[in-house]
Amino acid sequence: MSILVVGSVALDSVETPFGKIKNALGGSATYFSISASYFDEVNLVAVVGKDFTKKYFKIFENRKINLKGLQIVNGKTFRWEGKYNYDLNKANTICTALNAFENFQPELPEEYKKPEFLFLANIDPELQLRVLAQVDTKPKLIALDTMNFWIENKKEQLIKAIKKVDMVLINESEIRQLTEENNLVKAVKKIMKWCPAVIIKRGEYGSLYFSQKKVFSCPAVPLENVTDPTGAGDSFAGGFIGYLSKVGKTDQKEVCNGILFGTALASFCVEDFSVHKLLNLNYKRIQNRVDKIKALAAIRS
Amino acid sequence: MSILVVGSVALDSVETPFGKIKNALGGSATYFSISASYFDEVNLVAVVGKDFTKKYFKIFENRKINLKGLQIVNGKTFRWEGKYNYDLNKANTICTALNAFENFQPELPEEYKKPEFLFLANIDPELQLRVLAQVDTKPKLIALDTMNFWIENKKEQLIKAIKKVDMVLINESEIRQLTEENNLVKAVKKIMKWCPAVIIKRGEYGSLYFSQKKVFSCPAVPLENVTDPTGAGDSFAGGFIGYLSKVGKTDQKEVCNGILFGTALASFCVEDFSVHKLLNLNYKRIQNRVDKIKALAAIRS
Repeated sequence: MSILVVGSVALDSVETPFGKIKNALGGSATYFSISASYFDEVNLVAVVGKDFTKKYFKIFENRKINLKGLQIVNGKTFRWEGKYNYDLNKANTICTALNAFENFQPELPEEYKKPEFLFLANIDPELQLRVLAQVDTKPKLIALDTMNFWIENKKEQLIKAIKKVDMVLINESEIRQLTEENNLVKAVKKIMKWCPAVIIKRGEYGSLYFSQKKVFSCPAVPLENVTDPTGAGDSFAGGFIGYLSKVGKTDQKEVCNGILFGTALASFCVEDFSVHKLLNLNYKRIQNRVDKIKALAAIRS
Repeated sequence: MSILVVGSVALDSVETPFGKIKNALGGSATYFSISASYFDEVNLVAVVGKDFTKKYFKIFENRKINLKGLQIVNGKTFRWEGKYNYDLNKANTICTALNAFENFQPELPEEYKKPEFLFLANIDPELQLRVLAQVDTKPKLIALDTMNFWIENKKEQLIKAIKKVDMVLINESEIRQLTEENNLVKAVKKIMKWCPAVIIKRGEYGSLYFSQKKVFSCPAVPLENVTDPTGAGDSFAGGFIGYLSKVGKTDQKEVCNGILFGTALASFCVEDFSVHKLLNLNYKRIQNRVDKIKALAAIRS
């Protein structure tokens, strides 16, 4: 199968109670594609500046993440600076410098235009629509992520994009904000008038999946060391869509299995800064963590 | 089997965004015993004032909740007044009038001294210790609940009580406060030096059970109408211990099943004010909700 992701590649500076990093590899498309690359090849569409050095390119190239759609423009790469306190559920943005991202117009290379799985990571919904317009054939699954900034500033375009995809990945505060419904079940019902399925990402509480046929609650792994939650949602998406692409199916059972794999990748992601831990996995370790998540919800002696 | 609960019987005044009630039946031992009464007989030890009228007694008597240990003293029944905003996870106490509870000294009637299941609901840890001293034979399971007030004011006695029980039921902020550990896994490890098992109650996120042999994550039911969360934790305990008493076992498998039943009772509790919904259930409806909770965590087409 083929996976296409359009999103950000960034250099992040992050401080948590457990340490800090400066200008480390980050961005939604980065976390997604590294996570998905354990399952299948990934075509990445994003933009970086001239400061994006060879060592960063190598990280992608070593993993068969295709960079033909990665534009390189004059100036600096998108940078995000954030800080977390002991409540690791909430990021405090200190500084966002769009840089190369400011005038980004995603262009799909010809051979990317028939993806079987498409992830529209958190970018301007107008760009998400622009990507959708370039896709030639209907993928097996299109999933979309977003954030509070777009809900506040481009709600109409965002809803237009949601109406064209198969699934929305969203966190609790975002779904409440987008639907103006405090109750999650009511909020989901509103989204499902636009789009057939929703995954609500709840951080350390796991996730909830809703479709017409199934409601599925997946626990998160209780972790003793959470170092940096940045990228957990995109790693979840990468593990989820990567798994679906590997098995080539999107029935309800495989969607649930995909959520387990997404949860596993997210749990590895938060155990270290940047993509450090994500780069040093193998399929067996991922499968072991999936088994651990399954055991969490299993009733047995 | 026989269940003994020692806790509070109260008259609650509660306001939520969905309505309000005044002097309605409440209290930890009330929610617990009504929930547990769907599974087995309950011996209740608590105290009320002269204002506790016949209609309230009838609620217990109609359900084979034995009131021989319910002391009736001069003055008023314990009253609690609270308010919830849209964040139903957090109660704001407006007023607590201990009244009859102020000088409460729990005394177990002779025939209550050999309980097979004992729930020490949220009361002064010194009273919890006093109850434990009156128990003649080792129960199959002793579980203890508490709250921030006792952690702040009687931590030493609380830990002494925890060391004498088999299981602690506690919420996330309480376990963090009690152990002075932000990370839940580390917090659980501390508690498990004192006591072999812990259930962390996480409200709308479900619960996490930890013992040496098993970690179990139980989802909460996504509910469209949550009216009043008061009593959810005690209803959980009542369903949990009620089920274990009914099956007469405390192996890991039945503990997990018990958690499902506790979750079901808690989910009914929050759908109406006071004990209104809890009074109108039957075993089939409870079993149906348990099946729904099981399905939430099940991977299938």
